[in-house]
Amino acid sequence: MLKCQKCGKTYEKFRMLCECGGLLDVLVGFRESFESLLNEKYLDVRRYLNFLPINENFLPKLILPITPTVEKEIENVKVLFKLEYLMPSGSFKDRGSYVTIAKLKEEGIKEISLDSSGNAAISFALFGKAEGIKVHVFIPERTSEGKKRVLKLLGAEVHEIKGLRMDVHWKAREFKGAFYISHWYNPYFLEGTKIAAYEIFEQVGEVDYVLVPTGSGTLFLGLYKGFKELNNFGKVKMPKLIAVQAEGYESLCKRSKRKSKLAEGIAIPEPPRKEQMLKALKETKGFCISVGDREIDKAISDLISMGFLVEPTSAVVFAAFKKLLERDEFEKDSKVLLPLTGSSLKVI
Amino acid sequence: MLKCQKCGKTYEKFRMLCECGGLLDVLVGFRESFESLLNEKYLDVRRYLNFLPINENFLPKLILPITPTVEKEIENVKVLFKLEYLMPSGSFKDRGSYVTIAKLKEEGIKEISLDSSGNAAISFALFGKAEGIKVHVFIPERTSEGKKRVLKLLGAEVHEIKGLRMDVHWKAREFKGAFYISHWYNPYFLEGTKIAAYEIFEQVGEVDYVLVPTGSGTLFLGLYKGFKELNNFGKVKMPKLIAVQAEGYESLCKRSKRKSKLAEGIAIPEPPRKEQMLKALKETKGFCISVGDREIDKAISDLISMGFLVEPTSAVVFAAFKKLLERDEFEKDSKVLLPLTGSSLKVI
Repeated sequence: MLKCQKCGKTYEKFRMLCECGGLLDVLVGFRESFESLLNEKYLDVRRYLNFLPINENFLPKLILPITPTVEKEIENVKVLFKLEYLMPSGSFKDRGSYVTIAKLKEEGIKEISLDSSGNAAISFALFGKAEGIKVHVFIPERTSEGKKRVLKLLGAEVHEIKGLRMDVHWKAREFKGAFYISHWYNPYFLEGTKIAAYEIFEQVGEVDYVLVPTGSGTLFLGLYKGFKELNNFGKVKMPKLIAVQAEGYESLCKRSKRKSKLAEGIAIPEPPRKEQMLKALKETKGFCISVGDREIDKAISDLISMGFLVEPTSAVVFAAFKKLLERDEFEKDSKVLLPLTGSSLKVI
Repeated sequence: MLKCQKCGKTYEKFRMLCECGGLLDVLVGFRESFESLLNEKYLDVRRYLNFLPINENFLPKLILPITPTVEKEIENVKVLFKLEYLMPSGSFKDRGSYVTIAKLKEEGIKEISLDSSGNAAISFALFGKAEGIKVHVFIPERTSEGKKRVLKLLGAEVHEIKGLRMDVHWKAREFKGAFYISHWYNPYFLEGTKIAAYEIFEQVGEVDYVLVPTGSGTLFLGLYKGFKELNNFGKVKMPKLIAVQAEGYESLCKRSKRKSKLAEGIAIPEPPRKEQMLKALKETKGFCISVGDREIDKAISDLISMGFLVEPTSAVVFAAFKKLLERDEFEKDSKVLLPLTGSSLKVI
């Protein structure tokens, strides 16, 4: 069931926004224990099916792996890199697509439109192709050529839009004839991304800090929700969430004058779920931190040296981690989770 | 322990070939049960550590996922696609690198050389970079630009060689000052690839047929070994192994005059482990089948339509599957495993 954040109205059917314009949340209440819901026979995303509001008869055919978590000791801090880039389309967005596609199938929706700076578009295009769902993607004209090629290969109808990211957004919303599915609003998308928290819990137990690349907040709010559910199960304390943003596109901390060119995946100045994110930061005693291109560039090299082939946007979390390490932000032996969100293979 | 296939001499230390020139096999004898060896607390490659001849103190830092297996019913046959392309470097070769790197670390070897048509080179370059092991890669000059870029990014010393694949091979073997680690000989590589069979067993149980892209035979022989071990544990019957080769490069069936240009990953006319592969085919009542570029091209489109972003070499198994389906080779409801070996993200 969906519930409006603003007026409280509830919906059974899939929709992006409430009639009043408010954002929707998925309500999931668990009456059973974590252990009884966990489906241990599966070694992939289906292990967590009982925590998801989807019907087993409409699962996407493409199955998501459980992404590995690599532990590294850096200056007395246990850094946990979660390899979200090892997803079928090369980014964590597949988690959101997986759940969304299941809902679309359940409701018989066959044509969708969305705006994306790239990864969400590739993910939906891939799942759409596999399920016979027609996908219209609206992307900024400046999107890298590699991503555009992949989209066309996947049979998506690509609409390249001149102008800012927000112009792309409005063009997609105005488009008629398809169900608009933007991950900026889509409440089911967060159900998909929350599963990363379940995996982390099974892999390493409790964590102290979670640094998340944060633009529209799909991973940030998904991880918040996942940890919150685990907390309700009595499994973990809430980690401190740290939203990592790019210079010039900060929505949760002070906007810089200089604009990042590298972190295209989070160059979203006005995310619709901003208030929800601020609340999550406050509740977990977290904060927002911003990084610039010089720091991102250095972080990319660092990550490659460790064997992680990730795209620039993914590197913001390591850039932020180093900044916070210098500030002595982390207690000795604390566990710091850094999800690595997107593969570099498609863009280099 | 390593044992020579030819003279029977055994070795404790890591080496590529016996003094007599014979090929080496890793001898692993399990005294315990499958269940007691399986390390269920892990949801990644470490789940199968006890089946591997490596020391836990020398594990590579980069961790491999358990790759999902996607089941599809095609004309009354249960086709099982194993998504081997979701590995950190984009191909199944990471399985072999993982075990090999563990052995190199154990023996303190810091500089290696290898010849590869691309994927093995990228895999070793990635793991080498992460572990501080210097990697010299010898590749054919015609290797795709995407792969070359990735190699350089990973800090490998790239030696581009004009001529045939065999010329590349000899140049790498002649190179002095580094430990030659070719997956063509390397017995530990097969220990890594065998783990795919363990995963399949946990994911879907027994299978009837296994179609494998077969050049040097690293995946073919690894899967053979894995299923053999599972068979010895009393867990599965031996599946029928079907080696899929590319036109013009057949080593296990009749050589075609026409030469495939698409299947660069298996364009290996004289694999050193040829006899061993023929034995495995005979033992499992399997056979070799060859496919050409037109069939491969069609199979790539088919796979993309199903949501699998794989490179041309990977598509040979689906091309072969369709050929065999037409020939009515598979009994109703039989389970046919098709490992999808390499990602297309780096080459499109």
